[in-house]
Amino acid sequence: MAKIAILGYGTVGSGVAHVLDENADRVRLSAGENVTLAAILDLREFPGDPHEELVTHDYQTILDDPEITVVCETMGGVKPAYEFTKKALEAGKSVCTSNKELVAKHGCELCDIAKQHGVSYLFEASVGGGIPILRTLEGALKSEKIDRIEGILNGTTNFILTAMEEKGASFDEVLKKAQEMGYAERDPSADIDGHDARRKIAILGSLMTGSLVDADEVPTQGITDITADDLALANELGGTIKLIGSCRLGENDALEIMVAPFFVPAEHPLASVKGVFNAVAVHGNMLGTSMYYGQGAGKDATASAVVADICEMVRNAGHTVPTSLSGQPAKTASSADTARRFFIRFKSADKDGILDAIGGTDKASERDGEAAVLTGCMKESELAQKIAGPNGVTKWLRVLDTEEE
Amino acid sequence: MAKIAILGYGTVGSGVAHVLDENADRVRLSAGENVTLAAILDLREFPGDPHEELVTHDYQTILDDPEITVVCETMGGVKPAYEFTKKALEAGKSVCTSNKELVAKHGCELCDIAKQHGVSYLFEASVGGGIPILRTLEGALKSEKIDRIEGILNGTTNFILTAMEEKGASFDEVLKKAQEMGYAERDPSADIDGHDARRKIAILGSLMTGSLVDADEVPTQGITDITADDLALANELGGTIKLIGSCRLGENDALEIMVAPFFVPAEHPLASVKGVFNAVAVHGNMLGTSMYYGQGAGKDATASAVVADICEMVRNAGHTVPTSLSGQPAKTASSADTARRFFIRFKSADKDGILDAIGGTDKASERDGEAAVLTGCMKESELAQKIAGPNGVTKWLRVLDTEEE
Repeated sequence: MAKIAILGYGTVGSGVAHVLDENADRVRLSAGENVTLAAILDLREFPGDPHEELVTHDYQTILDDPEITVVCETMGGVKPAYEFTKKALEAGKSVCTSNKELVAKHGCELCDIAKQHGVSYLFEASVGGGIPILRTLEGALKSEKIDRIEGILNGTTNFILTAMEEKGASFDEVLKKAQEMGYAERDPSADIDGHDARRKIAILGSLMTGSLVDADEVPTQGITDITADDLALANELGGTIKLIGSCRLGENDALEIMVAPFFVPAEHPLASVKGVFNAVAVHGNMLGTSMYYGQGAGKDATASAVVADICEMVRNAGHTVPTSLSGQPAKTASSADTARRFFIRFKSADKDGILDAIGGTDKASERDGEAAVLTGCMKESELAQKIAGPNGVTKWLRVLDTEEE
Repeated sequence: MAKIAILGYGTVGSGVAHVLDENADRVRLSAGENVTLAAILDLREFPGDPHEELVTHDYQTILDDPEITVVCETMGGVKPAYEFTKKALEAGKSVCTSNKELVAKHGCELCDIAKQHGVSYLFEASVGGGIPILRTLEGALKSEKIDRIEGILNGTTNFILTAMEEKGASFDEVLKKAQEMGYAERDPSADIDGHDARRKIAILGSLMTGSLVDADEVPTQGITDITADDLALANELGGTIKLIGSCRLGENDALEIMVAPFFVPAEHPLASVKGVFNAVAVHGNMLGTSMYYGQGAGKDATASAVVADICEMVRNAGHTVPTSLSGQPAKTASSADTARRFFIRFKSADKDGILDAIGGTDKASERDGEAAVLTGCMKESELAQKIAGPNGVTKWLRVLDTEEE
């Protein structure tokens, strides 16, 4: 029997307890032995909770209990999660987490400490709760040379863009509705400004390259600037607009990484991912494109991912489950030199001049005096030159093409 | 350094050699040591092949070489693959395979033999080459109660249906084109009659239930009966038609398993899987729906899956990688008592009588005197009763709804 402790009994932490109760038989099968919840650290009390008697306010009792071999850190934030995680690892306990902020900031160091102490640090739930993408990258895809990972990594923004598209509603209207439905926080900035996706793509980029991507350095653009008109015009041009976390290896294996709204052609598998769902497309040199799709958040889905980590750590008690995180800083490249197509927006009145400037031959889509067109393939720097000056381009987005094109 | 042998140097077997060469660095990272191809068993010679000197016609030399610890069986068919696999396992060598026929027929027995000898039998590449679905079921999803697996498991039929839909072309025309392009065999029966998908869903159903699903007992219907009209009418009703391998747990945990063309509503994630791509949707009690998408076949994609198995077996040398296959026969149930919606086809002239009979209120889609409608939710036995007699229903398909509906 393995004993575990949960740090932080909020949505995810209590979800972990729920999954362990509900799926006890399956957990035993997966872990190879019974997994028992032995302690819960939280500042609050939980009268009436089935596990209320396990709640403690003193972390030291957990650290001092040699029978507790696995700790689930579901507190969120860097402080005090970082200290707590370090102490658990140093006490010879494996730790798993759903805390993307902590993993993006200190994941590599924590993996090193885990290794030094013969235990594991796993973080499947930190990137897209219901999608087992990290385990797939570290397992089935590990013998592939991965050169691109592109994903819809945030359910809130995908819900908003989907609703704007389907209902022709404004960003503000839909955000308000998402907040009412509990799909968006009262302070929605982490989602709509792209910071949540930024941390997730930094983790994916780090695993893909086996080097350290600093999440704070990832160029990030959110969706507050996207209008229902943009989406309608994109639809007419045979695509949609999605907030994409993208990393790809360019020349000299330098990593181009960013979060930004992209025009996604309808035939791209990410185009049909709607509502709160997330998906990650991975391109490997032998496997080609594969895609992983599921609930990006949600209490039970995220908790299920944490429990999968618990089972893996119990199964591997006595040695470290390897991860590809390393302290070697990733070599990054700007996107300015990447050639791709672009979706550009302008007033219909400016059409002739703009088509002239970009040398585009495609017909523009137009509605109510607003227009858009897809350019041919060019570098970002080239586009910037062509649309420099007062020629009326009001907005441009990158086009997410597949490798094969 | 781990030494391996390949049995059968055809498309997949030579692909495995190619991936081992091309991705040697990644393979070393994944396996934890160098993996070296030491022998190739084939009846033929391969003059000019980079590995020609490794070819042997005598299996005994491979069995007798104690340094060869892993054997890749990429021969296909049951004979002599079954005997060869058994002998390798009994000689203490782990075996991986892309051979779905053998796995569907003898997988459980071969896993047992592997366990007895402290080695492994893995078969990721037997279900959808480019989709790491078996490893995901046995790993990340193992602590879930999986109650539904539904997939597009055959690239040839998905290519055909997609082309019929997009071009309005007939089945025969498109099949001919698929044969010319190498996407369909000269004798296409294994694909178009659903037998390939049948073996794959039997393997998935076996892993899902931890019991033995006899592939020969899976009710199977192919796509030869589907017309461009069916697809056009399905489109008008907001969906498409896909060949689906389906297994789901019904009452008393009995397994309803089948291969058949389904009407798939556009909002279902499987609806947008086009061309030769495959995808598998899995529903777990905590995780909800997740989906795995990739190339279903193709030399490099399939070989990459075999290589992932090789790496896992090398990494786990000295003990058996567990699988959920068991000899306990699965408890199956007929689909007659499952309530769902249906897509039914008839001549426009018969419309009034049919809408009366099924009690349907939806408007029918019609073109050129042909019509279709989606029924309400009812049992298959109930549908059969309602459309019994000469009331003009020419065809019916099940509707693939998501659990959530």
